[in-house]
Amino acid sequence: MGRISESTVRRLSHYYRVLDEVHAEGRRMISSRRLAEREGITSAQVRKDLSYFGSFGRRGLGYNVAHLREEIRSILGLDRRWRVALVGAGHIGSALLAYRGFAAQGFDIVAIYDRDPARIGQKLSGLTVLDAAALPAAATLGIEIGVIATPLKAAQEVAEALVAAGVRGILNFAPRKLFVPEGVALRTVDMTVELESLSFALRQARAPRRRRGSGPAE
Amino acid sequence: MGRISESTVRRLSHYYRVLDEVHAEGRRMISSRRLAEREGITSAQVRKDLSYFGSFGRRGLGYNVAHLREEIRSILGLDRRWRVALVGAGHIGSALLAYRGFAAQGFDIVAIYDRDPARIGQKLSGLTVLDAAALPAAATLGIEIGVIATPLKAAQEVAEALVAAGVRGILNFAPRKLFVPEGVALRTVDMTVELESLSFALRQARAPRRRRGSGPAE
Repeated sequence: MGRISESTVRRLSHYYRVLDEVHAEGRRMISSRRLAEREGITSAQVRKDLSYFGSFGRRGLGYNVAHLREEIRSILGLDRRWRVALVGAGHIGSALLAYRGFAAQGFDIVAIYDRDPARIGQKLSGLTVLDAAALPAAATLGIEIGVIATPLKAAQEVAEALVAAGVRGILNFAPRKLFVPEGVALRTVDMTVELESLSFALRQARAPRRRRGSGPAE
Repeated sequence: MGRISESTVRRLSHYYRVLDEVHAEGRRMISSRRLAEREGITSAQVRKDLSYFGSFGRRGLGYNVAHLREEIRSILGLDRRWRVALVGAGHIGSALLAYRGFAAQGFDIVAIYDRDPARIGQKLSGLTVLDAAALPAAATLGIEIGVIATPLKAAQEVAEALVAAGVRGILNFAPRKLFVPEGVALRTVDMTVELESLSFALRQARAPRRRRGSGPAE
């Protein structure tokens, strides 16, 4: 399973969404072609992605929707619930707490941490904000995934505290690169970078800047 | 400028964050080495990224923080404000409206659309939710960027309505691939996929599944 690429896993997530949708519509079978169309890829790619996990499909009949959906659900670890700690009760953290999609997917935010004394002890979406100094005790809460929504300055330190507390999966919303030991899975959601990449593209389309000579620096 | 890769633009966003931080600390100069360390890349890569835009640095002295910060700010289109329409007033949409980071970066959500009659007309963060059927009129509001936070079924249709209304930049939060014409910049923030990629990694680390034979399908 070490051979499964990150891009295959991402496509599995997307297949799962499509399967969920057609399952809700009551359809029983789906072709690799239909799964492929939605992703803008070839049906051969779909079959290759799914073949990593066994033979789900039958030639000429396509895939059984309910069965394939359950298999991918299990492969992605969505057939169980995950205990999540959120670190950072600021703008992003509050928005994430308000976002109910996490729980719908099986990710339960069971603890929230901050280091601002003004926030510690406050109630947010039914949880009492804990002192970030108590992060080492996250292990006793059975935390498996840490979500980092701190200012960028604190993010690396928080990642290290989470790892020290035994957390093996981190979702980082702070707009900076984090360093974690091997064996810890790190994923990043960087709205800032996506937005800036968008405004860059729009600005370039409108008023291309001249290219100036490259110059040396330290 | 067409040669600038997406990954360079993303690094520029990160350099901008670092520069912002050291600028706030009152530092005047920064070396390419320090910028590189934060990104886990080489200083040669930093100099190459910055050389696309001209010679900002002086050999042996590094870069002037205030100057380089302003240059990158302008390159990324952050020295102006952008008018943004948010489509979808559900969980993600409400969380995005509550997130004040957008405005801090120059992105003003000036209109919000939904097609649920129960939501149309409601006030959210000071904005009245408009009928999504009115999206074609977004052009008259001077909308430049559309943020899609709809259920996945509606996302493609909304993207097309935004493009028809003259929007040239789309930030998609719906967990599915979207298709837009050339000339329209599309960026995706997919929390769902990142979370599922994380639970996949954790599940694999804990209980590796056996690899089964690959099988044919339709």
